[in-house]
Parts: sequence; structure tokens; C-alpha cells
Amino acid sequence: MELDQIYNPVQEDLKKVRETLKSVSHVDFNWLAEQIHHVVRETGKGIRPALTLLSGRSYEYDLTSLLPMAVSVELMHTATLVHDDAIDKSSTRRGQATINSIWGDEIAILLGDYLFAKAGEFVADTQTPRVIKLFSQTLGTISSGEIVQFRAAYNPDQTREDYFHRIYGKTASLFSLATQSGAILGKASEEDVDIMKEYGDSLGIAFQIVDDILDFTSTKEKLGKPVGSDLMQGTLTLPAMFLMERHPDDNPIRKHFETRDNKYVTQAIEMVLDSSIVKDCYEVARGYCDRACRNLKKLPKTTSRQSLLDLADYIIRQGT
Amino acid sequence: MELDQIYNPVQEDLKKVRETLKSVSHVDFNWLAEQIHHVVRETGKGIRPALTLLSGRSYEYDLTSLLPMAVSVELMHTATLVHDDAIDKSSTRRGQATINSIWGDEIAILLGDYLFAKAGEFVADTQTPRVIKLFSQTLGTISSGEIVQFRAAYNPDQTREDYFHRIYGKTASLFSLATQSGAILGKASEEDVDIMKEYGDSLGIAFQIVDDILDFTSTKEKLGKPVGSDLMQGTLTLPAMFLMERHPDDNPIRKHFETRDNKYVTQAIEMVLDSSIVKDCYEVARGYCDRACRNLKKLPKTTSRQSLLDLADYIIRQGT
Repeated sequence: MELDQIYNPVQEDLKKVRETLKSVSHVDFNWLAEQIHHVVRETGKGIRPALTLLSGRSYEYDLTSLLPMAVSVELMHTATLVHDDAIDKSSTRRGQATINSIWGDEIAILLGDYLFAKAGEFVADTQTPRVIKLFSQTLGTISSGEIVQFRAAYNPDQTREDYFHRIYGKTASLFSLATQSGAILGKASEEDVDIMKEYGDSLGIAFQIVDDILDFTSTKEKLGKPVGSDLMQGTLTLPAMFLMERHPDDNPIRKHFETRDNKYVTQAIEMVLDSSIVKDCYEVARGYCDRACRNLKKLPKTTSRQSLLDLADYIIRQGT
Repeated sequence: MELDQIYNPVQEDLKKVRETLKSVSHVDFNWLAEQIHHVVRETGKGIRPALTLLSGRSYEYDLTSLLPMAVSVELMHTATLVHDDAIDKSSTRRGQATINSIWGDEIAILLGDYLFAKAGEFVADTQTPRVIKLFSQTLGTISSGEIVQFRAAYNPDQTREDYFHRIYGKTASLFSLATQSGAILGKASEEDVDIMKEYGDSLGIAFQIVDDILDFTSTKEKLGKPVGSDLMQGTLTLPAMFLMERHPDDNPIRKHFETRDNKYVTQAIEMVLDSSIVKDCYEVARGYCDRACRNLKKLPKTTSRQSLLDLADYIIRQGT
């Protein structure tokens, strides 16, 4: 099943989300409009806003609050990417030149701040202090998570616990905001909000594991950035950890972290692909998808519930 | 009259603001705590949170919302300073080493984001969507204003209108948030909220003009950064504009912007000090202070109203 079909129960409203995102670039200054347009025109798969709408769809579906929430979640994601690219000195994202590569780090910092502000305006439009607080807490989790990641760069001695903590911060926390806020704004019971939180938490972890696998198995064209980017930036992901565990004494990752020589990245990728590591990582991701879905059956049996189940299935099929 | 006396009606509550700010650094990671502590331990004059409390003091003074609002305003200010210093590559602020100079630009970006998030959490605690929205709009105004300033750097052909627009964005908008939010949270009438907005807008402009004067007239010790920093960073302020207007054909500022040679900054400072420009700029600032205060007499006659009047007077006396 493809994303279009999965998104079906909220397809029309996702179009409104995209239109609203584009409207953010309607500002007085032409060059600022150009910079905003550069980052909001291509929203990727739109999984985060879809999660908000699909989560809300099972309850009181009030677009006056769900639409700004979905827009807000995507804008926060976009803002963090703009800052991440400046921090990582990345030159391409989704196959396009990054803000920092075109206009410099200074504009990337300020444009990211501007997008956080816009995200804040949209979340304020929900008129719901509880999701507004959750929104801010999530931004705190993401940015402190990024600080952890930055400080852990090129450190080969990290535990799996470190890894899961890190990817919860950088990815799962926002998935969790997306699903929880949908349920809260739909006036779901506290029990259901908890189920949606569990779904968002675990789906986000699974999504990031698969993303980390694809950094080894995919192509530059599909990724929109070079294969092996994580290792080149000194980020230790699950496949890399598996490789280090299996070759504790002599492995190319430790050598890469010591020398920063990219020939060791190529070697690490080859070793991962020649082993059962990819399969094993998908197993771990599948475990998180199962966990995401295990309590969904307690929710009202709606087409949107089915979409959430299908989305978990879709994520785990990426790259396989 | 000194600040301590002016702050008198809210002195005890300002202590609570400072304590709450310090508590933001109580986080699990020691090094993150160290970074946060570095920026929240010294809050400068605390004018912004004082404005929130003094504005609220004339109405229903409910600390459960005014305290988080005051903390939020100061945290937003701190976050923008952390990002500004990274953008301007400043090495000192308030006489201390900046975050970017100690831990690098990457940490400065992420720590600023983290502080924005914390500011967002506190403003959410007001449980008042109207001030939450105003908070986000203000952050948008500040960051787009900073983008304007960055793009205008080393451009000698700016109008006074450009200048006032720029300093509204970078300074007055936050003063305005501080005073308006105090009135709104105090359940003031719309007319009174407007008066507080006018006060914040104009006081903020006056404050920034005086700040820009001090960059010419003060000392490195008092400023906590080198004299002439604005010009060195290519920022055209009111005294500089006056100098250019008076010497349109041959002036050191245009030469500095062309050559980036700091000897022209020294020359510009000398020329400003040898002229009536400082006096004339104070006149302009005084005009804004008068405007800030002109409608305050319509407000309830409280000790906090008197403090707002005294604060305008205090600001205009800085450096004279």
C-alpha cells in the first residue's frame, strides 16, 4: 500500500496543510519570501502532519484546531532541519541545496528561528494550552537531543541506550507530539491519548532506525544526500553499532572516527551490506512497529485507525 | 533614581523571576546545565521582566500567570542574544565570554533553540492563548528583523525609516510584548492594553537609540564589549547616520564599509564625539520617551505607573 492510499481518510485536509505551509512564504520582503519558499515548497512525505490528522480523525474532528496543529508540527520539523543542516554543514537536503549552502549559516540560524516562531503562532491558534505546552516541551527535547548528538559525534564508545535516547529526542518526540496532539484536540479520553503517545513514540523510533539503515543501503539519488552521511558526520547509528559489536577489535568505524578518512566509511558500508546487520536492524525496527500498534485495537474502529496500522507497515517496508 | 528604587513595587517578585531563571539550568546533563547556567546567571538589568510585572501591577496582579510570562520574556531575550552572538561572531557579552566563543557555533544554535523552547514552556503556563500568540509573533518579528539587519550590514545607503524599522524589530517588539502581556494578563481594558503597547513600543525604540549612542560614548569596561562594535559589524545606527548626513561626500563610515579597516571606526567615533550628534540623538530618544509616557496618565494612578514613568526617565539618563 502506498502513502496516498494510507493518507486517504485525511487526503483533502493534507492539501490544506500544504497550502497553508506555502502561505507562510507570503511576506513583505521578496528575499525572505524566497528563503521561506525554498524550505516549505517541498514537504517530503508529510508523515508528521498526516499523523496529527489521522490521530484526530478517530475523535471529534475539528479542523479549526487540527489544521494549525498539523501545520505547526511540520513547520517545527522544517525549522529543526534548517538548523541541523547549518550545524552539520550539509550542502544538500531532499536533493536540493540547503539554506546554509546558498545563503550562509547566519541566514540559516535566523530563518530557523523565524520558522519556530511561525510554528508557535500556528500552535497558539489551537487555543489549547495543553498542546502548546507539549509543543514547547518537544522543542526542548529535540534541541537538547541534538546537543547530545553533537557532543557524542566521533565517539565510538556509545551504548545502545545512548542511541535509543538520542533518536527518541531527535525524531520520536516529534512523532509523539503529532499523534498526541491529534488525540488531545479531538477530545479523546486520557487512555486513548496514552495509546496515541505510545504509537507516536514507537513509530518514531522505528522510522529513525529505518532511516539509519537507508543511510547504508540506499542511493544518493533516493536519499537526496550522499550515502554514509551519518558516519561521515561522526553519528553512530544502529547498523554501525552492530558492526562494531561484531568486530570489536578491528573495524573501519573506529578507524574512521580516529582518522576522518572516508575510505573507512566505504569499507564499513560494504561490511554491513555483506552481513546480516541490515536484516537484524529491520527486526529491531519491526519490534518497535509492533509495539506502536499493539494497543491500537482498543481505539474506535475507524478508517483512520486502519491508516495508522498501515503506516507502521509502510515504514518497515521502506528500502526492503 | 536608580533601578532598584524604580523596581520597588515588584522587587520581591523580580527575585522570584531570577530564581526561576536559574532553575532552568537544573537539567540531567552536567555540561548542558553548565551552558544554561552560563547564560542565565547574569540577567543584566532585567528591564524586560520588570516591564511585565510593573505593567501587570496596575491591574489584577496574579503571579500565577505574570511570573511565567516575565520569565518567558527574559528567556526569549537570552535566546536571541545567544544566536546573535553566534551570527556576529562576538567573543564577549556583558563582559563574559560568549557561548559561541567557548563551545562553538553549533552549541550556540542548539542552546538558543533550547532556550526558545523553555521560553515557550513558560508562556504556555500563562494558559492564555492571546499572549502565547503575541509571544510567537514577537519572535517572528525579532528574527525577521535580524535577517533585515544582517542583509543590511555594510550597506551605507539606508534611510532613517530603515533604521527605526530595524530597531523596532530587534528591541522594541520585545519591550512591547513585555508591557502588553502584563496588561492582558492583568485583565486590563483594551484601551489600557493599547496604552501599554504604545509605552513598550516607544520605550523600546528610545532604549535602543541610547544603546546605539553608548556604543560611541561609553567604555569597553562598561559595555562589556569593544566600543564601536556596531560599526565594526557593519551596523548603521542613528549616530552613524547623523555623521554620514553631515559629511555626505567624505566620511569614515563609508570608507570603513568599503575597506573594513577599523582605523575608520576610531575616526568616526572621534568625529561623533566632537560634534553635537550625541546630544541630537538623545533628543530623538527623549522624543520617544515622551511618546511612551504621554498616555500613561490615563492609567490607574499606582506606584507601578510611577515606576514606568521613572523608568523612561532612567533610560534617557543612561550615559549622560
